[in-house]
This record gives sequence, C-alpha cells and structure tokens, in this order.
Amino acid sequence: MNYHISDRMASMRPSMVREILKATSDPSVIPFAAGNPAPNAFPVAEVQRIVGEILAERPIDALQYSITEGYPPLREALRQLCASHYGIPMREQDDLIVLSGAQQGMDLATKVLCNEGDTVLCEDPSFIGSLNCFRSYHVNLVGVPMEEDGISLPALEEALRREKNVRMLYLIPNFQNPTGITTSLEKRRELYRICAEAGVMILEDNPYGDLRFSGEAIPSLKSMDTEGIVIYVGSFSKILAPGVRVGWTIAPKPLIAKMTVGKQCADVHTTILTQMLCERWLATCDLQAHLARLQEIYRQKCALMLDCIDREFSPKVTHTTPQGGLFLWCTLPEGADMLDFCNRAVAEKVAVVPGVAFLADENAPCRSVRMNFSTPTDEAIVTGCQRLGRLTRELF
Amino acid sequence: MNYHISDRMASMRPSMVREILKATSDPSVIPFAAGNPAPNAFPVAEVQRIVGEILAERPIDALQYSITEGYPPLREALRQLCASHYGIPMREQDDLIVLSGAQQGMDLATKVLCNEGDTVLCEDPSFIGSLNCFRSYHVNLVGVPMEEDGISLPALEEALRREKNVRMLYLIPNFQNPTGITTSLEKRRELYRICAEAGVMILEDNPYGDLRFSGEAIPSLKSMDTEGIVIYVGSFSKILAPGVRVGWTIAPKPLIAKMTVGKQCADVHTTILTQMLCERWLATCDLQAHLARLQEIYRQKCALMLDCIDREFSPKVTHTTPQGGLFLWCTLPEGADMLDFCNRAVAEKVAVVPGVAFLADENAPCRSVRMNFSTPTDEAIVTGCQRLGRLTRELF
Repeated sequence: MNYHISDRMASMRPSMVREILKATSDPSVIPFAAGNPAPNAFPVAEVQRIVGEILAERPIDALQYSITEGYPPLREALRQLCASHYGIPMREQDDLIVLSGAQQGMDLATKVLCNEGDTVLCEDPSFIGSLNCFRSYHVNLVGVPMEEDGISLPALEEALRREKNVRMLYLIPNFQNPTGITTSLEKRRELYRICAEAGVMILEDNPYGDLRFSGEAIPSLKSMDTEGIVIYVGSFSKILAPGVRVGWTIAPKPLIAKMTVGKQCADVHTTILTQMLCERWLATCDLQAHLARLQEIYRQKCALMLDCIDREFSPKVTHTTPQGGLFLWCTLPEGADMLDFCNRAVAEKVAVVPGVAFLADENAPCRSVRMNFSTPTDEAIVTGCQRLGRLTRELF
Repeated sequence: MNYHISDRMASMRPSMVREILKATSDPSVIPFAAGNPAPNAFPVAEVQRIVGEILAERPIDALQYSITEGYPPLREALRQLCASHYGIPMREQDDLIVLSGAQQGMDLATKVLCNEGDTVLCEDPSFIGSLNCFRSYHVNLVGVPMEEDGISLPALEEALRREKNVRMLYLIPNFQNPTGITTSLEKRRELYRICAEAGVMILEDNPYGDLRFSGEAIPSLKSMDTEGIVIYVGSFSKILAPGVRVGWTIAPKPLIAKMTVGKQCADVHTTILTQMLCERWLATCDLQAHLARLQEIYRQKCALMLDCIDREFSPKVTHTTPQGGLFLWCTLPEGADMLDFCNRAVAEKVAVVPGVAFLADENAPCRSVRMNFSTPTDEAIVTGCQRLGRLTRELF
C-alpha cells in the first residue's frame, strides 16, 4: 500500500543525533556524540528509598489515573522551587503545569501558538530535538546566528522585520545545546525588550541552568517577564534523571489552559509514580548539596576535555569554553570538510555530532562539531581526544 | 497581552469528562462519570516487588535516557504477547513501538496521516479523548452512527463517498467507550473490506479487549490485516494500571518510522522505569489468572449496576448490556432533557457524563448518558442507581 503521509511529517527524518547514537551503540565507540548525564550523577540510593516508600504508602495513587495538570503537591513544590531557587516569582498572570519531560513543552507551545507556515525563530545552531519538534508543526523555522554571548541582536531585529507571522523565539540561554554558550545579561535584557515590542513570545528552555560550574548565575528571561511573553520550560532530566521524563512549564494562564488541553489530547497525564518521586525527592533531598556534587562532576569532566583538546588538537581547531552544561563546540579551520572529519572519527571509534544537525537550514555550510563531556568516562575523554587530535593534526 | 492562539487550538476546550471529574472531586459525589479501573484490580504486591528489583538490579538503566522506540525487551515481549494472546501475528510488513499510553497512539497516527482539513471518521458516539485529539489536528471529524453491533455500514459507505480526503476510520471494536457496544465479527469483516477498497486506514483502539466478562472473543481488525491498513493501539492501563502510562502500537513499517520521529519530537521516549515494570510484570505474572480476576471484578460490578438500573429506573430509560469493559450507555425517553437530567443528578450527588460529550458534533441532539461501573464501590452503585432511578421515575 502507498501510504498518505501528512505534509508536516513527509520530510521529517529521525534526529541525526539519535541515529548516530544508535549506530554507535557499539560500546567500543567513545560516545562524544551523546548527551546523557553522567550515571554517577543519579541519586540512586534516594530514588530506591523514595520509590519504595511511595509504593508502600500510596500504591493506588501511584497507579491510578491522575489529572492532566500534574500531581498537585509536585506543582506546588515546583512553584516554590521556581520562586526560591530559580528566581522566578509566580506572578498572578502565570500558571505552572507538569510535563512529560521538557521536550513536551516545546511540543505544546508550538501546538498552541503556531499555525502551519507561521515563523519560529531560533538560535542557529540550536537543539535538534526542539528544531525537529517545530518542523513537525510545519512552521517556517528561521535561525538567528549565535555570537559568543548569545544571538546577534541586529540579526534578530532583521528577522523580525523580514519574516511573516513570527510567533516565538526559542532560546536556551544557559550553556546552550550544542554550543555551550551562555547568553549575557545585557543580551537577555535587550532581546526581551525587542520581543516585547514586537509582540513575539519567548520560549525559554533551561535544562542545564543548574549545571553551572564557573562564572556567575544570570537571571532567567522569565524572571524579567513583566509583560507575560515568556514560556519557561524546566526539567528534572539533568538534576535528577532523564528516565523519569518529568519537566514543567510556567507560562501565562491563557496559554497554560490551552497547553493543558493539548496535553490531555497527547498523553492524558505524566507518569504519576515518577511525578511522586520528583515531589518527594525535592521535599527530602539536600538540593544544594546534590547540585554542588553534579557541578563538581561536570566541572572536572569539562576541564579534562578542554585540557585534552588544547594539548592534542591542531591549534587551527577552535572551541567554546562553557561555564556549565554538557557540551562544547569545536570549529574546524576554514576549508575543512567537517562531514569527512566526523566519518573519519567514527572509523577511529570516536563519535561526534556534525554541526549541521543543529542548523535551522541543514544544508547551510558548517565546520563545527558538538562534543559531549558528561557521558564518556575520564579515560574515554583522554583516549578520544588523542584520536581526534591525531586526526586534526593529520588533516589541518 | 492578547495572545495569538493557533487555529487548531483556538476552539479546543478541556474534555467535558475530565472537567466534570474535577468538579466532582468531592468524595461525597458518586463517580458514575469516571473511567478509572477498580483500584482492587491493581496487582500492588507484584508492582512493589518488581519495581524494587529493577531499582536494586539496574538503577542506571531505569534512570538514564533510552531510545524512542521503547525498551527493547518490552517491545519483544509485546510482539510475542500480540501473537500468542491477542491473535495478532507480527507480519513482515508491520512493526511495534512503545507509547506513553494509548492516547499517544491516536496523537501520532493523526500527526502522521492527516493534514489539516483531511477527514477522520469515527463511531458516533466515541471516546472524547480521541475525538479531542483529532480536533487538535484541525481535521474534519465525521461521525458514523452506532448500531447495536457496531457502526452503520451504509452510513460508512455514504461518508466515504461524501467526504473528501478521508484518511482514517477510528474504532473501539470491544466494549466501546462510551456505549459498551462490541462490533460483531461480520461487521468487522465488512468494514475492513470497505476500508481496504477505499484505501482508508483503520485506527483500532483496544484498551478494553481483555476485560471481556461474557460472550465469545472476536478477532481484532489487526488480525485480519492482510492489506496493511490497520494501526492497532494497545494499553497497559486497564490490565496493569493507567498511572504507568504505557501503551503500544503495531502498524505498517513506513508509518511506524514516521510515528517514531513524531514521538521523538513529542516526548523523546516513554518513562523507562514503568516500561521495565511492564516487561518484568509480563515475564513473571500469571497473566491469564490476573485477567480472570479482573473480568470477575467487572462482571460483578456490571451485573450489579444493570440489576439496579432494571429495578430502580423508569422502564422508559433503555440501556446497553456490555459484554465487557467499564461503561454502559443509558438512553432517556423521547422528549427528555438530557442535560437537565445530568444537572439534577449532580444535585443528587451522582455524576454521569452527558452523551453529547462523545459526539463528533457536540451540538447534535442526544438523549443518552454514559455510566461507569468500575470506579464506584458496590455500595455506591446501589445508592447511585437508587437516586438516579428516583429521578427517572419523577421525570419520565
């Protein structure tokens, strides 16, 4: 049978990153292409204790249907956490719901805000999972070039003038995936002002914000949101564990109401056992001590990878120096064949992600690759950088 | 701020059922409006044991990112279960992926098959969660009237002639929500033939198939699917527990490939801990004995409700007599004001769902209400039917 595929999905392909990861499930391949939190970052003993307690004390609540908005005690805990820990006061204009991971926030925001053909602006490069989500709504996806301190503001203003029906600007302000870049406070203030004037929503995705291992914390866009133009998306994936699939969003009430209806249609509600786990974990763990431990893990791993790159790579290869998160971004010298480099790396049993995967226009020229320092062991970081370094010295 | 809402979501409202349930969270209201499995149907001790084992033996696997298609041992277990238990051979043409509950199957099928404005046919009445999902893709939703043994075939053929770009027919062949009606074998064969000839996909939703408590099992549409036109959706919600949010779909490989990309964009993957729970539960439980116990619970509850209705209700109220599932469908006499009846019922602290909630056209006339026998206790069934019965005798 010749199946009719919708226009929105006809040209969609699997995420290049996830396909690379499947191709390199061979454990002998060093996984610089991954994006997994370090396994020793998971609070295993606490999870075991808490899940045991929940199933002993409240098994029926943990197994029965629940409401779409999320487990009420978790919503309340997140409201408080956002105010006290993330510096986001719960304004009268806003509400908070639980999501099945942060990815669902991108999905529901697009579903609610964008007609097919409307424009979504994003950092260029940006997180492929979100870009593919936008594409799956058949929007006009337009990249705004990244600079060292966030997107180019003149390019943002130009895009706002040029593109039709711009509905939102998608940003990962902290330790962006894939570049590791953090948007400066000045740029946050300016781009907020520009979007507010243009009546364009900001979709602020902050999965890595707690993984800062150097420099000073910078206020979120949502904390500045006096105008009600920011949809903030948070996640337990990097602070507790990604397998639980729990995130949340804070957004203006009219949008939360529509997102809730959208979620009802998409998955009814988020797994209740892991919602209860998140709630009780927040209530009983020492969050600051846990985050300090995570930051130390990632500080060391990032420093090790940067050190190896500086020692092993051809000096013609440049890289970002992230202040947190899981990723850094290496750029090969002018004239380099980046895809050829990635293929040679895989032949040497080191997987990196070709930078084109993260571009709004995947056919645009790109000489960069994403490297992840959270998944590989320290030994793998050293060995992988030696192999890549040898390649760069041979080629460039 | 005046928010721009997408056309697809602008007219969407929360599910009437879920709103009624929120309004009647008052524990003194008898919940005939609900759709929860009976809490004593949950295998609590086994869940406690299995989750404890998983977190003791494989905590990192249970907490780390996983692949979009689902936990591989669960996919394999479901392939075998579908062949041995559901009578659905895994054909070369088909593949199976895990879903975050059956609702996600409706979402992904629509996302992959339907452009905005394309037509989706459904039983009329049908499950509101699915209908709202179809609406959230801005399709042309067209109901095909239900008869005692499934949809009207002449009406189906007429709809296929009349409507443009018909992409799929949505069916719940076993103990349908909301009517409790089971589609006969003859009708399954005929409607399969009609759809195959018309090149229209069938979306077969089978959440209740294992809850048959009388009559003979009828082969699924997917078991007849020599042409590759059936997307089958199964669920752990009614056999294990809905809170785990695990379902699955079997569909032709080209569609599974696109649904997987769609799922990647929607929620990355389903909660891994509950996927592992489902796998180990299937591997270690006595499924037949467990299902026999569930069937006995629902047989008794349904019989009790039918008995109370026959004794208490005005004889002018008619009802379906389901052979399984969770619901039955009562129809008030001609001229009755059904919404007024529902409001009076809530005033008497009995919640039922107005039948209009389940119609493709929510403004069409309707004299029926949905009643659920799985959620209320036996005492609540007796008391609730007494109160409703008194109302029916006063009004009709």
